[in-house]
Amino acid sequence: MTGTGFSRLRSPEPDPDTKQTTSGAGGGTAMRVIVPLQGVAQGRGGLVLGSVIPCALFYFLQFYLKRHRNEPKDPNSPASEKATGSPTQSPSQSAGQLTELPGLPRSLSRPLLSPRTAGGPVSLSGRANSILKCSDSPYDIGLIRVEEDPYDELGNPDGVIQLGLAENKLSLDLVKDWLAENAREAILGGGRRELNVNAIATYRPFDGLMDLKVAVAGFMSQVMEKAVSFKPSQLVLTAGATPAIEMLSFCLADAGNAFLVPTPYYPNFDRDVKWRTGIEIIHVPCRSADNFNISITALDRAFSQAKKRGLKVRGIITSNPSNPVGNLMNRETIYSLLDFAREKNIHIISNEIFAGSTHGNEEFVSMAEIIESEDIDRDRVHIVYGLSNDLSSPGFRVGAIYSLNENVLAAARKLTRFSSISAPTQQLLISMLSDTEFVKRFIEINRERLGRMYVRFVAGLQELGIECTKSNGGFYCWADMRGFIPSYSEKGELELWNKLLNAAKVNVTPGSCCHCIEPGWFRFCFTTLKEKDIPVVIERIRTVVETCKSLG
Amino acid sequence: MTGTGFSRLRSPEPDPDTKQTTSGAGGGTAMRVIVPLQGVAQGRGGLVLGSVIPCALFYFLQFYLKRHRNEPKDPNSPASEKATGSPTQSPSQSAGQLTELPGLPRSLSRPLLSPRTAGGPVSLSGRANSILKCSDSPYDIGLIRVEEDPYDELGNPDGVIQLGLAENKLSLDLVKDWLAENAREAILGGGRRELNVNAIATYRPFDGLMDLKVAVAGFMSQVMEKAVSFKPSQLVLTAGATPAIEMLSFCLADAGNAFLVPTPYYPNFDRDVKWRTGIEIIHVPCRSADNFNISITALDRAFSQAKKRGLKVRGIITSNPSNPVGNLMNRETIYSLLDFAREKNIHIISNEIFAGSTHGNEEFVSMAEIIESEDIDRDRVHIVYGLSNDLSSPGFRVGAIYSLNENVLAAARKLTRFSSISAPTQQLLISMLSDTEFVKRFIEINRERLGRMYVRFVAGLQELGIECTKSNGGFYCWADMRGFIPSYSEKGELELWNKLLNAAKVNVTPGSCCHCIEPGWFRFCFTTLKEKDIPVVIERIRTVVETCKSLG
Repeated sequence: MTGTGFSRLRSPEPDPDTKQTTSGAGGGTAMRVIVPLQGVAQGRGGLVLGSVIPCALFYFLQFYLKRHRNEPKDPNSPASEKATGSPTQSPSQSAGQLTELPGLPRSLSRPLLSPRTAGGPVSLSGRANSILKCSDSPYDIGLIRVEEDPYDELGNPDGVIQLGLAENKLSLDLVKDWLAENAREAILGGGRRELNVNAIATYRPFDGLMDLKVAVAGFMSQVMEKAVSFKPSQLVLTAGATPAIEMLSFCLADAGNAFLVPTPYYPNFDRDVKWRTGIEIIHVPCRSADNFNISITALDRAFSQAKKRGLKVRGIITSNPSNPVGNLMNRETIYSLLDFAREKNIHIISNEIFAGSTHGNEEFVSMAEIIESEDIDRDRVHIVYGLSNDLSSPGFRVGAIYSLNENVLAAARKLTRFSSISAPTQQLLISMLSDTEFVKRFIEINRERLGRMYVRFVAGLQELGIECTKSNGGFYCWADMRGFIPSYSEKGELELWNKLLNAAKVNVTPGSCCHCIEPGWFRFCFTTLKEKDIPVVIERIRTVVETCKSLG
Repeated sequence: MTGTGFSRLRSPEPDPDTKQTTSGAGGGTAMRVIVPLQGVAQGRGGLVLGSVIPCALFYFLQFYLKRHRNEPKDPNSPASEKATGSPTQSPSQSAGQLTELPGLPRSLSRPLLSPRTAGGPVSLSGRANSILKCSDSPYDIGLIRVEEDPYDELGNPDGVIQLGLAENKLSLDLVKDWLAENAREAILGGGRRELNVNAIATYRPFDGLMDLKVAVAGFMSQVMEKAVSFKPSQLVLTAGATPAIEMLSFCLADAGNAFLVPTPYYPNFDRDVKWRTGIEIIHVPCRSADNFNISITALDRAFSQAKKRGLKVRGIITSNPSNPVGNLMNRETIYSLLDFAREKNIHIISNEIFAGSTHGNEEFVSMAEIIESEDIDRDRVHIVYGLSNDLSSPGFRVGAIYSLNENVLAAARKLTRFSSISAPTQQLLISMLSDTEFVKRFIEINRERLGRMYVRFVAGLQELGIECTKSNGGFYCWADMRGFIPSYSEKGELELWNKLLNAAKVNVTPGSCCHCIEPGWFRFCFTTLKEKDIPVVIERIRTVVETCKSLG
């Protein structure tokens, strides 16, 4: 999306051929068209009508003519290959073009073709090419490095230690014990002797079994300490929280529309929200001075700037607890956000996938609680949830959309055909989440372990002179390493990241991957560690920060 | 998509506001703009430059002006609500608009708002509204009727009999027996004592475990009688064949592009291919005179017509075995299709989800076999597969993309984050498909049962004077009921469908749901029946066709 008003009239999904066309339109003699326009437009408009409109008309005329003329030979044109990054040009371009001579009947044109080489390389869609062009970010590179060379105390003590992935392995033993004892019966279907194969192998509703919705709604209420009672009928289940976010984005915004998203945010949001939907993300910077809390002023400014750029803002995406910072949103902030959304008449997607992964004493407030109790904004607030974090089970791929907007639910239900949960896993989870004894114990023990790890890990960093923001949720802490970067810039931040990854062999997420506006902040995920790993990690980080200090 | 060339310049995702704008542009005084154009264009072009161009310029000018003026009050504008089907208008529209006065600071505007009513109803995206507007087709209505009132020999003998869903329950007993015996060990991870919780609960590669790819590739080779050896590294696994088709569509075509699809085709293709991608489907009619085989002449005609409409055709989607007809594609047809695709330089998506569900003696030829052996078109052919049909397990939600095009694979792999298979199911299937004894037996017995049911069911219809096309694959037969429809039209066909559903209580799929160009054809899926149900079904159908005969 460029900043001009005209770009909105073009296809929001970039078409390589079109791009080639418009950028090269001024060049080729064949494409040049003379448009004598006299007194183009009358009426209001001033500058716009006087100068921009003639340009627009000229632009569209060229655009139309070029497309119109090019069309017949489009699929084979060298331009289309170049634009899609194909390295070779077929030697039989001329043969390919021959088949396109208008009026030449196919039966005639066909024998002229060498069947093995006729068409040249066939191109992908513009959107697939954009996805392919997305180069790996430091976040991706770090994950790949861990995959290639993972730390293991005994097996690979010099491997890379993972602090870059928000996954909680602290309570996997509890999941394991439950599965070992109950998996078979769970899949058999709740203790019955005979296996009900219809319950797991045949077609099931794409948006999740009602029994699982009841179980998930119950689990959500329980992790949120019963402050809100979720209605199973308002849930749509998906194969992970990622498709839940994408599905909501599809339902709330069209290609070319935008969402406001406070930064720093989860590194993969860009992919989740933008890749297939064609939606834009407008950054709303949060700052260290505010402990990275959302500022309504910043939201308002971002909204106005988006409008100036010609973007229609359809909503805000918030994460509570925030990822990467880990802070919780207090009631006042939630009310202000709702006020803002109401004033602008936009939606709110409240990503609450860490709702049950809080520690410390601060209260977690779900947006669902507010809309429930206040009976307002029921149509504009939509919750994203999932079991990956709060049940330590990302491998299960279970996400959820919770909304009181019946149209959103109806559309999302229809879209679950593209991302539904496999039935054996649904049966497994119905049993698991209905085991109230297990769930209660799991939540309790997991929260305690999470809190203890947080305290110890943050204390370890503190010993090195690294302070973290106050946080109460998530699997990470948000560390201030501004004092250790060689220059106060993204470049400086990435230099430190590089040292941590390649010298100290610790994979962390630099703030720039989360679009943090201030350089020098890092996310450290500590929940894939064991407690005894903490001293090892801290020691490795020390080797780096000590050199940095002496340099700084 | 309208038929004019100009429509291509509009956003392919219909924007309700824009629609409102262009259709109403001639009316409102405020929108009217006078554009005195004199001697608009010189050069070649004749008719186009002389008459179409001035209209185009006028169109774009109005379009631009309307969008530009509307923007500031867009989210609250009554037009946007009307277009999105919202039934009520907020009484506080004026308040909502007040907040949008340029330059009015937020602190000032806010107190003027009544927080409970300010914004009015918030709208969904244009694309969500289009999805919601999709009314239920007879195909959907039939499925709902069965769900509400399913036939059961003992429990509900007057219920609706399901012949409308392509699901195979003939061999579910084999799946059940295997699961009963092996489910626990499969999830535990292949016979080891200790459960490997990391294998099922933690993050796994989104595009499927390599072990499962090996197992699926082996299964594909086996159901295709080892005519082709599938390489596991060329597979991308998805949560069902539906997302596999959508994902490929995203990768091969942009919004506003088109695929050629021979009709009659599977009723849900429209949703799978078009809903989120913005891609168009161009029907390529197949006729009873050709036993509903694909005709290259018809393909060529559809291609040319699409081009005339300004659509860029990016590929062909074929189904082999075909659904709903059940015929197989012979080698000659496959070669002709490849020739055609090469000549036009377009892709082929070969949907082979019934490859292992063939009966009779005709040979099934996978397009993978041809591209493998001929070493051509490796970049343009992509296979869609899944376990729902050939392993009688739609509840597992396992689909696959098989391609030799590395770019397509790379893009699809990245997109699996939106539709990945849950890990417990992956583990289950690794065990199941690696059990070669089971797989061999399953394929053999299932094929035999399928063939026997086909023969008996078709014979039953024949007794009633209903002939089916010759078919060798799938869970259905394609019945010629042209002699029983009150008028040779879609209306006549739907009248017969309605009688079958509501009088005879048999749910079948009318050909019009599959876009069959000839009225009077119906798909009867017989694989959810038991053999002993056949006489019951035939008797019910008899009651209807006998009245129709006497009327006709």
